[in-house]
Amino acid sequence: MPSCPPQRQRQLKKLILRLGLSANAPIRWDLLDLALTHPSTSGSDNYEQLEFVGDSVVRLLAAVLLQEGDAQGSVGEWSAIRSVLVSDLNLAALASSYGLERFLLLGPSTRNDHRGQESWLADAFEALLGALYLSTSDLSLIRPWLQPHLLQKAEQVRTDPTYQNYKAALQQWTQATYQKLPEYRVQENQTASQQPEYSIDERFTAEVWLQDQLLGVGKGHSIKAAEKAAAQEAFLRLQSPLADA
Amino acid sequence: MPSCPPQRQRQLKKLILRLGLSANAPIRWDLLDLALTHPSTSGSDNYEQLEFVGDSVVRLLAAVLLQEGDAQGSVGEWSAIRSVLVSDLNLAALASSYGLERFLLLGPSTRNDHRGQESWLADAFEALLGALYLSTSDLSLIRPWLQPHLLQKAEQVRTDPTYQNYKAALQQWTQATYQKLPEYRVQENQTASQQPEYSIDERFTAEVWLQDQLLGVGKGHSIKAAEKAAAQEAFLRLQSPLADA
Repeated sequence: MPSCPPQRQRQLKKLILRLGLSANAPIRWDLLDLALTHPSTSGSDNYEQLEFVGDSVVRLLAAVLLQEGDAQGSVGEWSAIRSVLVSDLNLAALASSYGLERFLLLGPSTRNDHRGQESWLADAFEALLGALYLSTSDLSLIRPWLQPHLLQKAEQVRTDPTYQNYKAALQQWTQATYQKLPEYRVQENQTASQQPEYSIDERFTAEVWLQDQLLGVGKGHSIKAAEKAAAQEAFLRLQSPLADA
Repeated sequence: MPSCPPQRQRQLKKLILRLGLSANAPIRWDLLDLALTHPSTSGSDNYEQLEFVGDSVVRLLAAVLLQEGDAQGSVGEWSAIRSVLVSDLNLAALASSYGLERFLLLGPSTRNDHRGQESWLADAFEALLGALYLSTSDLSLIRPWLQPHLLQKAEQVRTDPTYQNYKAALQQWTQATYQKLPEYRVQENQTASQQPEYSIDERFTAEVWLQDQLLGVGKGHSIKAAEKAAAQEAFLRLQSPLADA
């Protein structure tokens, strides 16, 4: 199995111990090294490919936890919760709680770029998940430490009134930031309703605009439901610190 | 372990054998039964939750196969290939090749809805993957039969010149510049088709977004054609010196 320089491996073992895993676990140290190498350090050997894998890993774990915890739950609610769980905001906070930045190889200009920090922390965290997944071809090196965090966040989302009322939350935000109210434009999906396969959940499509900027789009069985879905998409997107990238 | 009625289980065993798996494999028959139950049969006990899980499963398997096959590949290209692998079109074709429709419980109006068939076949196929994943908590019941199909399709996409187009170029550009992938939103122009002026070339409208910024809009006779047109507009606009005007 390919490895990485002994000094780097010693450093990476510290991270593995922080995650609560054994340093003797069957870890692909070469992949872990790559997962913690920012593109500013190497244009070719960096975390981008593993991030691509890890993004799917965290989405799958979130889906599995939602299915296990609430097998009769609404897929719409699951989808809203998962979007928070896999957000850069959440993943960067988790990365930070394990001090991931200390193990990450990155160029000095990137390290000092505090605005971009959340983005590269989240990316490296996903790459770490990719490396751990590929080490065993299952979630056995990931679930033990990540599951409690995701379950706690899911519960927080479920009980947070902000997430139960996105329209109000969005309005407060646009008022505070631009002294403007968001505007909703709703359309009934006419032809859709004539099709046998037509889902009642897609009868209306709402767009929410702030002046000439489209903030979000949502569908629903009623005008209110579609507007709520559009507000939710807009609100979650605006909460992401990458919103203005 | 919960089960399902003996007659149904006998039927589902035939499907398992078709996939090349052993009927003695540790399969959650109750979940498999659910995966092959359309919402038109039961509003509460149907495949929707498992489809949510299975969607992540196929995305993960596609990512893993791309990583294993081409560890230095461009993430932009991987993303373009994966979007084809996990498309309804591809998954419905796979479902059909295994005769999945014969095992699916669905109401008569749905069965006769040939226009919607691709959608429910793909959904049920994802749900099947969800049930098989949850049976063992890994891909061991999925990779043996699904991997050859995905690898073959990936190779087909790689060598098909129609995919070497503006979509790929745009993706490479947004990846390189913002480390983000563009997102396509496609709508069928329902109302247009009822108007005398309607052109078949305008059946679909695609928008391509980078986070909250609309990059381009395009129309076409198919989803693919509309996306390609949107990508072309976006790519040409971004290359123009007036791009940020």
